[in-house]
Amino acid sequence: MIQKKRNGEELTGEEIQFFVKGYTEGSIPDYQASALMMAIYFRGMNEKETATLTQAMVDSGETIDLSAIEGHIVDKHSTGGVGDKVTFIVGPLVASVGVPVAKMSGRGLGHTGGTLDKLESIEGFNIEISKDVFVNNVNTNKLAVAGQTGNLAPADKKLYALRDVTATVDSIPLIAGSIMSKKLASGADSIVLDVKTGSGAFMKTLEESEALAKEMVNIGKNLGKNTVAVISDMNQPLGYEVGNANEIKEAVEILQGKNVKDLRRLSLEIASHMTVLAEVFSSYEEAYEALEANLENGKAFEAFRSFVSAQGGNVEMIDDLTKLPKADYHIEVKAEQDGYVAEIDAESIGVAAMYLGAGRATKDDVINHGVGITLKKKIGDTVKAGETLVVLHSEKETANDSRDKVKAAYTIIENAPTDTTLIHKVIK
Amino acid sequence: MIQKKRNGEELTGEEIQFFVKGYTEGSIPDYQASALMMAIYFRGMNEKETATLTQAMVDSGETIDLSAIEGHIVDKHSTGGVGDKVTFIVGPLVASVGVPVAKMSGRGLGHTGGTLDKLESIEGFNIEISKDVFVNNVNTNKLAVAGQTGNLAPADKKLYALRDVTATVDSIPLIAGSIMSKKLASGADSIVLDVKTGSGAFMKTLEESEALAKEMVNIGKNLGKNTVAVISDMNQPLGYEVGNANEIKEAVEILQGKNVKDLRRLSLEIASHMTVLAEVFSSYEEAYEALEANLENGKAFEAFRSFVSAQGGNVEMIDDLTKLPKADYHIEVKAEQDGYVAEIDAESIGVAAMYLGAGRATKDDVINHGVGITLKKKIGDTVKAGETLVVLHSEKETANDSRDKVKAAYTIIENAPTDTTLIHKVIK
Repeated sequence: MIQKKRNGEELTGEEIQFFVKGYTEGSIPDYQASALMMAIYFRGMNEKETATLTQAMVDSGETIDLSAIEGHIVDKHSTGGVGDKVTFIVGPLVASVGVPVAKMSGRGLGHTGGTLDKLESIEGFNIEISKDVFVNNVNTNKLAVAGQTGNLAPADKKLYALRDVTATVDSIPLIAGSIMSKKLASGADSIVLDVKTGSGAFMKTLEESEALAKEMVNIGKNLGKNTVAVISDMNQPLGYEVGNANEIKEAVEILQGKNVKDLRRLSLEIASHMTVLAEVFSSYEEAYEALEANLENGKAFEAFRSFVSAQGGNVEMIDDLTKLPKADYHIEVKAEQDGYVAEIDAESIGVAAMYLGAGRATKDDVINHGVGITLKKKIGDTVKAGETLVVLHSEKETANDSRDKVKAAYTIIENAPTDTTLIHKVIK
Repeated sequence: MIQKKRNGEELTGEEIQFFVKGYTEGSIPDYQASALMMAIYFRGMNEKETATLTQAMVDSGETIDLSAIEGHIVDKHSTGGVGDKVTFIVGPLVASVGVPVAKMSGRGLGHTGGTLDKLESIEGFNIEISKDVFVNNVNTNKLAVAGQTGNLAPADKKLYALRDVTATVDSIPLIAGSIMSKKLASGADSIVLDVKTGSGAFMKTLEESEALAKEMVNIGKNLGKNTVAVISDMNQPLGYEVGNANEIKEAVEILQGKNVKDLRRLSLEIASHMTVLAEVFSSYEEAYEALEANLENGKAFEAFRSFVSAQGGNVEMIDDLTKLPKADYHIEVKAEQDGYVAEIDAESIGVAAMYLGAGRATKDDVINHGVGITLKKKIGDTVKAGETLVVLHSEKETANDSRDKVKAAYTIIENAPTDTTLIHKVIK
């Protein structure tokens, strides 16, 4: 089978299933799996092979049964970026038009916390709810978020760990299969993918991002789940806030009607596709208009409040955002020259936030919900020497490593840069 | 390092040494080694990388010190074919002009026995001689053959076993490095390689064989050993005999002056290059003439007698070849139609010989020295229906599996086929 793939031949469904089963059970050793992964890196996989691999990985473990939830469940997944708090906006927004959002999330490693960590910025918020409470909350409020339990796609977990140490991560069909296997095991009826592209994303070029998006949409189609992918820009952090409590704060401000341009626009884009897939609206335009109205009339905010309250969170913190956890020190990083912001390396901003304590470098690190970074300038903004570029929310009086990282992340030039594109493409 | 090779970048000497050392010691796991091997399969290695890999594999174990042997030692290696008894002719032939041949051989698996098994057809022949006896024999008779002892190129052994189960054997630089690491560890000053090409060879096409030959010659050059490769035909067995005792018999007949065309020609070719490398002759033509004379004047045969005698072998068996071990039954396989022999699939003849007991299918099989196959017709010969194509020397009265295999190996056509080429190319 390794030789077949090495020679560029198509693998049969039986062969792929045999491999996934054998590898998960341990009868196929790591060294054969890694050789196969490398052969796939070079030879790729066609649509059929990729779909079969994904389904075999789903079948390797448990799948979550959400049939007790009423309505068409649409899941949303982001390939990961800096300052990405879209889930906290899209969830209540979609719920506000009656589409159930049943989100299982992880903590993971990263520059900032995961969805669960960010929600735990809200005092009392409980993510460890039982399946019954989860289902009941979704049926009542159309929105619940819980920690991921169960052994979803164990084949993917094992393969990913192997790929990570054998230079076989960067294969589009393998990445697509890995993401989609977890999504498909989570039991949603349809999926909207936010595929990030740019310097702060896993996929640096539009070409790669588009290839990944197409591959995932094809997997979804082949396995009977309607899937839409939005390719969105990650050449700078999304919105102005990076961290945990401050990301919740910015998301809530959007829900309260504030217009943070890129963040609001992308959230409405994703929510529109989700609600169209759920067949609540018949067109994107119709969805967009209705959802935008719900940001302005308070219905989306109200959905968020109910959700927080149902999971034990202190709603006062949402009503008065100054009550969210805050860091002790606020360190301003200033521009050294006049000009325009041309680039903000998102990954460096993420790393700077992690240095402050907003994320986990290793599994055992404890997250500090109050620390983080507020951008004062984004790409295209004019800057004067001495003006503040960024505020570091720090637990310590000085944060030189973060300050240096942030300074290096900004590129300031003399002339106005060309406009950035937020939404590059939608793949259906 | 895996990623670097995967991306087509050149590995540094330090990286390759680090890998070979780490893999041999066990600090680099199989799954990373197999991924690297697959990346090398796709990306190849340049001359420098291949030489460094080979040297690192040599350095992973012991090397044989042959400095106590007087003169310029030339080793000879064949990539393996059916009916290949060239070593038994070339060894005494080269020794007969004063060039020391100090040969370490293995048994291995295969259609027929290895060099050691074939020599053990001669009653009393002892391959388990001490290093001192070995060196002394070479200095006295210019020829000795011993079982390979010592831990030569353990990195190659470990890597080869891994490549075998991960579809990464078929990589020219890896094959070349594997062969050359063992040869270089064996302590010769120069090396002549007999690279077989054709249906009965590991390399089926001339193009592949030439690529392998060039790669090995380059490794030799880069590591300071003069190396010549002869690309010779293996589209039919070499000579007329396939087995153990019968191969010794045919080799001795050549040493006694008989002209078995392909076998004699190839032996003289290889011996000529060996003696030129040893600087006994200044040109190929001069060497060829002198060596041919030594086949005719009995000096080469005399060298073989002394060699057999020195290692305890019964010389009577050499003087009277009818005394060599013989099988009980001689089964004739006859042609079913008139015509010309167009093809003899060498591999099938080899497998048929193994069925008779001439080779080992598994490590524990015991070789029967008397059994084997005698070809009565070779490519280009005319055949009449009912004429004998092949004689099977069998321990059993019937040998239907061998008979069927041999029958299927022969292709007989109406018109005379084009002449076959024996020596395709010499790479220096």
